[in-house]
Amino acid sequence: MMYSKFVKPAFDDFILPTKKYADIIIPRGGDNHVAVDLIVQHIRTKLGQHDLCKIYPNLYVIQSTFQIRGMHTLIRDSQTTKHDFVFYADRLIRLVVEHGLGHLPFTEKQVITPTGSVYTGVDFCKRLCGVSVIRSGESMENALRACCKGIKIGKILIHREGDNGQQLIYEKLPTDIADRHVLLLDPILGTGNSAVQAISLLIRKGVPESNIIFLNLISAPQGVHVVCKAFPRIKIVTSEIDIGLNEDFRVVPGMGEFGDRYFGTDDDEQQVVLAPPQ
Amino acid sequence: MMYSKFVKPAFDDFILPTKKYADIIIPRGGDNHVAVDLIVQHIRTKLGQHDLCKIYPNLYVIQSTFQIRGMHTLIRDSQTTKHDFVFYADRLIRLVVEHGLGHLPFTEKQVITPTGSVYTGVDFCKRLCGVSVIRSGESMENALRACCKGIKIGKILIHREGDNGQQLIYEKLPTDIADRHVLLLDPILGTGNSAVQAISLLIRKGVPESNIIFLNLISAPQGVHVVCKAFPRIKIVTSEIDIGLNEDFRVVPGMGEFGDRYFGTDDDEQQVVLAPPQ
Amino acid sequence: MMYSKFVKPAFDDFILPTKKYADIIIPRGGDNHVAVDLIVQHIRTKLGQHDLCKIYPNLYVIQSTFQIRGMHTLIRDSQTTKHDFVFYADRLIRLVVEHGLGHLPFTEKQVITPTGSVYTGVDFCKRLCGVSVIRSGESMENALRACCKGIKIGKILIHREGDNGQQLIYEKLPTDIADRHVLLLDPILGTGNSAVQAISLLIRKGVPESNIIFLNLISAPQGVHVVCKAFPRIKIVTSEIDIGLNEDFRVVPGMGEFGDRYFGTDDDEQQVVLAPPQ
Amino acid sequence: MMYSKFVKPAFDDFILPTKKYADIIIPRGGDNHVAVDLIVQHIRTKLGQHDLCKIYPNLYVIQSTFQIRGMHTLIRDSQTTKHDFVFYADRLIRLVVEHGLGHLPFTEKQVITPTGSVYTGVDFCKRLCGVSVIRSGESMENALRACCKGIKIGKILIHREGDNGQQLIYEKLPTDIADRHVLLLDPILGTGNSAVQAISLLIRKGVPESNIIFLNLISAPQGVHVVCKAFPRIKIVTSEIDIGLNEDFRVVPGMGEFGDRYFGTDDDEQQVVLAPPQ
Repeated sequence: MMYSKFVKPAFDDFILPTKKYADIIIPRGGDNHVAVDLIVQHIRTKLGQHDLCKIYPNLYVIQSTFQIRGMHTLIRDSQTTKHDFVFYADRLIRLVVEHGLGHLPFTEKQVITPTGSVYTGVDFCKRLCGVSVIRSGESMENALRACCKGIKIGKILIHREGDNGQQLIYEKLPTDIADRHVLLLDPILGTGNSAVQAISLLIRKGVPESNIIFLNLISAPQGVHVVCKAFPRIKIVTSEIDIGLNEDFRVVPGMGEFGDRYFGTDDDEQQVVLAPPQ
Repeated sequence: MMYSKFVKPAFDDFILPTKKYADIIIPRGGDNHVAVDLIVQHIRTKLGQHDLCKIYPNLYVIQSTFQIRGMHTLIRDSQTTKHDFVFYADRLIRLVVEHGLGHLPFTEKQVITPTGSVYTGVDFCKRLCGVSVIRSGESMENALRACCKGIKIGKILIHREGDNGQQLIYEKLPTDIADRHVLLLDPILGTGNSAVQAISLLIRKGVPESNIIFLNLISAPQGVHVVCKAFPRIKIVTSEIDIGLNEDFRVVPGMGEFGDRYFGTDDDEQQVVLAPPQ
Repeated sequence: MMYSKFVKPAFDDFILPTKKYADIIIPRGGDNHVAVDLIVQHIRTKLGQHDLCKIYPNLYVIQSTFQIRGMHTLIRDSQTTKHDFVFYADRLIRLVVEHGLGHLPFTEKQVITPTGSVYTGVDFCKRLCGVSVIRSGESMENALRACCKGIKIGKILIHREGDNGQQLIYEKLPTDIADRHVLLLDPILGTGNSAVQAISLLIRKGVPESNIIFLNLISAPQGVHVVCKAFPRIKIVTSEIDIGLNEDFRVVPGMGEFGDRYFGTDDDEQQVVLAPPQ
Repeated sequence: MMYSKFVKPAFDDFILPTKKYADIIIPRGGDNHVAVDLIVQHIRTKLGQHDLCKIYPNLYVIQSTFQIRGMHTLIRDSQTTKHDFVFYADRLIRLVVEHGLGHLPFTEKQVITPTGSVYTGVDFCKRLCGVSVIRSGESMENALRACCKGIKIGKILIHREGDNGQQLIYEKLPTDIADRHVLLLDPILGTGNSAVQAISLLIRKGVPESNIIFLNLISAPQGVHVVCKAFPRIKIVTSEIDIGLNEDFRVVPGMGEFGDRYFGTDDDEQQVVLAPPQ
């Protein structure tokens, strides 16, 4: 009686009208354990992400929907076929790229529509380029091209050669990169070591730190700490923050070796050879 | 002194830390009239949208970024070339489709990642199909295919024939459409008349009203009223709510005759002929 | 001995050097029945095609490779999934479109390459448009767009309404179509009836007969006869000539109802309604 | 009189019926100097190609159409914008890839079509992979993916480091590459040096020479000689044979530095660094 007299009317007056702002509605209320558990975990993940976002104001996690979570589920699943992996990774990358482009500067622009009306909109910054970290980052080039016609794309290869810690670095960048906003492409941010090297190289080339937007699909908190501390003015855009790194410095839960899954190669195949002159 | 003693420290303590939640930061503060004006207009538009969203809980306007506003600026501009119009319309359609897919039902799914960890994610609803309203809606089929491999796509043609008000209706729909969630595709929601006809047809075919998600790029408030009142349980997903309709029942500011701009035909060319048997 | 003394040396001198012009080499010679049978059938098909090509000088069958034959095998197979059907149909359509574009007029053009050399090439005709016959022909629009940026695309719907033989015709064509070369899109040429209607409409719109290139994937000889006799100056480009029509006027062996397989609808769903004014 | 009595009738009887086999018809006959000149040059180029094809039976030049020549004209022109360069290079690459796939082995396969008829077709070889030579060859990956769903793609980087002639080689190949047919991707075959290194690496990995198909857009005769002599059993598929190399070992007329034009970087930017351990 208490319920029908007070709770229900109050619900109808104050809660029901807000239903539309909900991201999800749990049909059978508190008894729907599956949905409640899922949401609890979802909130926890997001809280973890938000903690990190509070610490680093330049870290952006794209707004999660259950569709995006569904794509993550598919590409993280070790049983997913190569073809499906590529399909859903491409789709998710596209959303990350679109979000990243939203951080570029703009100016106001008024246009006349075919009905003769004025529309007050904005004009994009056109001085930009992509830089992919070979191999994994190259998987993100297509989405960038699909959004930005004729965009210049540079490449960086960072490779640890054997045990002596010597680094092989191959790079091929637009000559005028210092004048451009740079979208740095690498799907996984793990320890942050190669990201730091890639970003350092861009800065040595004259790119202002604040002109760099680093795009990835999943990020480990460790990598976020390393990159954001070293370069507090770059922006990181990612689609999920993972729990952490395992003892092999791989992101967990992660999605495995991204490049190998995307290109269909295997982990043990990597090899760098310093060949004698022919 | 007041400023440096009270305002500034308070700002540093309470305002600055929230900087990261801002969608936009105005560099030079209150003197930056261009940015302030732009934001005021942006807020007004969003308020208008929100008023409508408050009335109709099933109306969803995708989260506007300045990149999305930039795409709108390009496709609304009457000076934009056909090639650019198609390019940016395709890009924007893709975002609307992705948002729309986020409203499909899902179930929880746990998967094992290649690192051996558990990832608790979700599984998509697979029982869906697209239905495009000929011609404009057909421009949205590609984005839908690009997101949903092998999705079934039905078509509806609604055409007013001459002045007698008689309607030509051609349709070709999946036979099992009653069991599917339907993404109804039409880039412009103007008066809502053809939308009402298309939705009525779907319902006659047995599709539950709540299984219909109507996707469009821009919507006039009039069309939103007409559709949401007639079908309170369908969802509408759009990227911008426009001001209204002009005396020719065209959306303003709008983007002109979408189909003609997308396919490169002209308005006066439309014609329907009832030919005698050959 | 005869063999080693005369046949083999003659073979080495006169036959072996021509090996490279062969489309296919049969490894174990005359005993390789599978390959020989396959080639015999292939030659028979091609001879049948060539007979038709001899009669109609404007009929072009794209050069068959075993890869193209493999795509035909997949899309003709009734067991192929919708997703695979779309994938391989799209791939084959692309080749037909590319071949069709090769029939457009051109002019000589000399350009300077980045090495400072002159390259004598050609300049494409830019005055063209596509016209798709709704629904099947719309499946060919993407390939055309992928080859010709920003190409105008018109549409024609021809629909037999009930038993009284009355035709519904909906059309939406570029206003300046009379000045353009037209690529008419319809994947199946069966009886040729709808092709004749579509072509007649184009000619009524002022398109010169010799400016029309009709693209299809498979053609029945009956349809070729009907179209080529009625319009001796249009060009037909197809990827295979089939055996003929069955008693239901469907192409055999054919690939079934193309539109239904491509869009995932079923044959019995087709319906046209003349609705009363609302 | 001689003409009308003998030549014309003979023409009508013997020449006119062959008109349809012509690739091009010269409207005003011998007076049409532009067309005649163009054809003479076209024939000369093709003769040059055929000479090379006679020497090397595994060299295949895709059948030239004036549309293909038009694409070459655009991508060879130093004035072409980056966006157009990418668009037409992609289109041409697609045709080379399709031609290359036509050289894969196949087996006969009979299928039943939806009309209940038997179609005798072929089944593709599925054991294949692509290997791109970084950077230019990576531009060909998309076309390969577009034709072969989920194809594995390996990468090879060969880089001359400074003047000491030492080679940096980075590779990442499918582990089971020895069991696969390999489509080696590199748009320009110039001196043939890097091609020889890439092919040697594949053979060291266990790929049979006859399982390699080397795809490129333009080939210098020197490169063809070097590759075909070293590896007489690999197949080369190209779209045009150019005149030769200039003193800088660049292909002429050529299309400049392919990678720089495709990715928008400049030639002087290339750099390889052997960095000390961090």
